[in-house]
Amino acid sequence: MDDTRRADEGFLREAIGLAVENVGAGLGGPFGAVVVRGGEVVGRGANRVTTSHDPTAHAEVVAIRAACARLGTHKLDGCVIYASCEPCPMCLAAIYWARIERLCFAATREDAAAAGFDDELFYRELRLPIEERSIPTLQMLGEAGQEPFAAWRASPLSIPY
Amino acid sequence: MDDTRRADEGFLREAIGLAVENVGAGLGGPFGAVVVRGGEVVGRGANRVTTSHDPTAHAEVVAIRAACARLGTHKLDGCVIYASCEPCPMCLAAIYWARIERLCFAATREDAAAAGFDDELFYRELRLPIEERSIPTLQMLGEAGQEPFAAWRASPLSIPY
Repeated sequence: MDDTRRADEGFLREAIGLAVENVGAGLGGPFGAVVVRGGEVVGRGANRVTTSHDPTAHAEVVAIRAACARLGTHKLDGCVIYASCEPCPMCLAAIYWARIERLCFAATREDAAAAGFDDELFYRELRLPIEERSIPTLQMLGEAGQEPFAAWRASPLSIPY
Repeated sequence: MDDTRRADEGFLREAIGLAVENVGAGLGGPFGAVVVRGGEVVGRGANRVTTSHDPTAHAEVVAIRAACARLGTHKLDGCVIYASCEPCPMCLAAIYWARIERLCFAATREDAAAAGFDDELFYRELRLPIEERSIPTLQMLGEAGQEPFAAWRASPLSIPY
């Protein structure tokens, strides 16, 4: 086993451990994640959806927010994220937005589905055209919707991300 | 114009207004959102990615978190979300997880792409099989990954969501 693989296993086991502890403490769903930079953990997270009243408090989002707060940036270039389970579409897109470099996970979306979580269902929904999704969606005021972008292009304060 | 359409337009204009104000104040990207329940705004949000050092601080996520904090719940059943622009995959999945009932938006993901944002790119990435995505992804320790789910099934403290 090479060094990278050994390190990956160690961090992934830490993420799994956070998930198990979280369930034992009754703090939320069975998910944990760690963000690592240069061999050091810079953010940890476990699912806190029900106890923090926040449907976005998935392990990966919590770990990304913690890492960004610690590093004082919104970009996690050069970081790896380890997740006890395959990220749901919300978390995967958050990983992209954070510009994380690499992802390792253990359990799959099918394992999550078997435990009663909707990750796989939401992956299917996101692939559908808007009019076929289960959430009724209305697009309107397309012209007024350009105003924020016009302001963005004109403002000297705009910081692209 | 019927009453629902008139109300939708009013709330959507408020979301667009939040986006324009946000850019004017230099607080973040050109995106705003409001969550409404029973004709009342229960959560407002604007993009704060760069200024709050949080890549998940998109307008919809900020508005959902605000609404949940105010209502003391992780479920926004019966709520409608109005977004100045079509939600990115992270925000759309967050809307599903929050169990929001309906979605209205103004600008499209193509408008966002034209302004330099990666929403459309990430929609394409999420549709790809894992091995074809731009982020290197490794699945490992599949058996250890079952431990959190086993703990979840066994614990009397588990609260499904």
